Amino acid sequence: MTAAAEARFALAVHGGAGTIRRASMTAKDEAAYRAALDVALEAGAKILRDGGSALDAVEAAVVVLEDDPLFNAGRGSVLNAEGRVEMDAAVMDGRGRKAGAVAAVGSVRNPVILARRVMEHSPHVLLVGAGAEAFGKEQGVAFAGPEWFRTERRIRELDRAKREKKIRLDHSSPKFGTVGAVALDGAGNLAAATSTGGMTNKRWGRVGDSPIVGAGTYAANGVAAISGTGEGEYFIRLTIARDIAARMEYAGQNLNEAAEAAIRTLTDAGGAGGVIAVDAEGNIAMPFNTPGMYRAALHPDGRKEIAIYGDDGR
Amino acid sequence: MTAAAEARFALAVHGGAGTIRRASMTAKDEAAYRAALDVALEAGAKILRDGGSALDAVEAAVVVLEDDPLFNAGRGSVLNAEGRVEMDAAVMDGRGRKAGAVAAVGSVRNPVILARRVMEHSPHVLLVGAGAEAFGKEQGVAFAGPEWFRTERRIRELDRAKREKKIRLDHSSPKFGTVGAVALDGAGNLAAATSTGGMTNKRWGRVGDSPIVGAGTYAANGVAAISGTGEGEYFIRLTIARDIAARMEYAGQNLNEAAEAAIRTLTDAGGAGGVIAVDAEGNIAMPFNTPGMYRAALHPDGRKEIAIYGDDGR
Repeated sequence: MTAAAEARFALAVHGGAGTIRRASMTAKDEAAYRAALDVALEAGAKILRDGGSALDAVEAAVVVLEDDPLFNAGRGSVLNAEGRVEMDAAVMDGRGRKAGAVAAVGSVRNPVILARRVMEHSPHVLLVGAGAEAFGKEQGVAFAGPEWFRTERRIRELDRAKREKKIRLDHSSPKFGTVGAVALDGAGNLAAATSTGGMTNKRWGRVGDSPIVGAGTYAANGVAAISGTGEGEYFIRLTIARDIAARMEYAGQNLNEAAEAAIRTLTDAGGAGGVIAVDAEGNIAMPFNTPGMYRAALHPDGRKEIAIYGDDGR
Repeated sequence: MTAAAEARFALAVHGGAGTIRRASMTAKDEAAYRAALDVALEAGAKILRDGGSALDAVEAAVVVLEDDPLFNAGRGSVLNAEGRVEMDAAVMDGRGRKAGAVAAVGSVRNPVILARRVMEHSPHVLLVGAGAEAFGKEQGVAFAGPEWFRTERRIRELDRAKREKKIRLDHSSPKFGTVGAVALDGAGNLAAATSTGGMTNKRWGRVGDSPIVGAGTYAANGVAAISGTGEGEYFIRLTIARDIAARMEYAGQNLNEAAEAAIRTLTDAGGAGGVIAVDAEGNIAMPFNTPGMYRAALHPDGRKEIAIYGDDGR
């Protein structure tokens, strides 16, 4: 316990990237987002300080973000055409590269918790739809009714989308609502978790990058843990999270070089978004090519960083 | 046309890996599998010989394998607990790394055709379940009734699985029924396609590696095209297909070294399966760690190879 408490650890969280500009945010909104990121960061940090695992830390941080209606994940998930939520989430444990994920689930209070159950209590990695929910019922995870998810803001957004006959797709939306966390614990283990609520007024059973290992979520001990946010289709096609780790493993790039290079391939392909990433030494990189990304980090030296815009803390 | 006809092209197909031993196959079975692989190979080769694209070639080859009841994909898909099929498929075009995929679809005659429609006619990469089928209806792809899928052999297998109260999961089954194709065309483009029918008596909405970019399917011009077959969960966690390409891009390994190394990581992790892969020069690698893999290749020098067991043609 003393060794673990003295060991270096690192943690980063994100609450989505997109067209987030200083000019269009009120001071009150900005303070609310910064406070929410801080609460999520502290939930994970407490676990790491007490000698807990990176996996527990990223799950705890993401649960906080899922429960906060500010973010498009869990409780704050946007509503689809039927006024329901349809959520995706994944966790990956750098120890042995184990992973669990769920896609297109409704009424599960914390999809990240269900994703972890898939990893630890099923022989599978990815479960979708009604089957994933049936597994959640067997596992006894918490479910929530429409009153939990149908927040005033999301009902307003859906009504507007329906009035405008618009499906707010990730790729045309100015904000990519996804939350995530990455961590290095005192024992040297890396872990990543990502969760999202998808698109307002959506259809077609679209699955984005969050629950896809190597796209929006990836972790491998000795290399890095990565969680992404942005135009999911580009993250899938370019295997953004795996690409960052591969550049470190095979091309000898450091975390920052690898993460910046992956975001450049995203930019070159015409995609938008960002990632948070931590390596085995606790270095943290949080590059993005959008005007802003809600993000926070706790560095191994104890330095805390909470930022929203591109020029924040740079 | 003359230039394309004279250009070098390469093509490989697979029909699944697993516990396929000479001792347990009749000469008649063996001949049927070899003939079926040859028909699929020739369907793709004809397109390449005529100067067609790698993408058209892999789609045509996989359609043949989907329509053949011998293989667990399309028509030959195994039946789930409700006596229905639930299929996954993906295509990836090495030009610009575009991709399309579907998961958990029933009653679509050729999932690989629907996957290509997702790539070319939707803004998305991955559609699942009823939403994917609704998109297919809009696109006018062919649907098929239960009489198409409920072949005598699959009904018998399901009845046996139900009698034994057994869910035949990929991870416990001796055979991983998946089909796939990879190609290099005369213009230097690479493409990959994979399709699978999943598990007999399955539940839980499990999605395997076939429709996951970087796991069971990957293609990038100038590097390689890969299609996998095996225990899907390992392919997802280890990002097997992307790993082969990453080793070539970033570690300077050749196709054979990279594919063999990726199969070694699969073996080390305790997983079973194999891949077919082709690089930008038309080299073909088809490593696997199971007793057999149904496979066929047409090399740039015109040499044709059709093999089943580990010691076939070695």
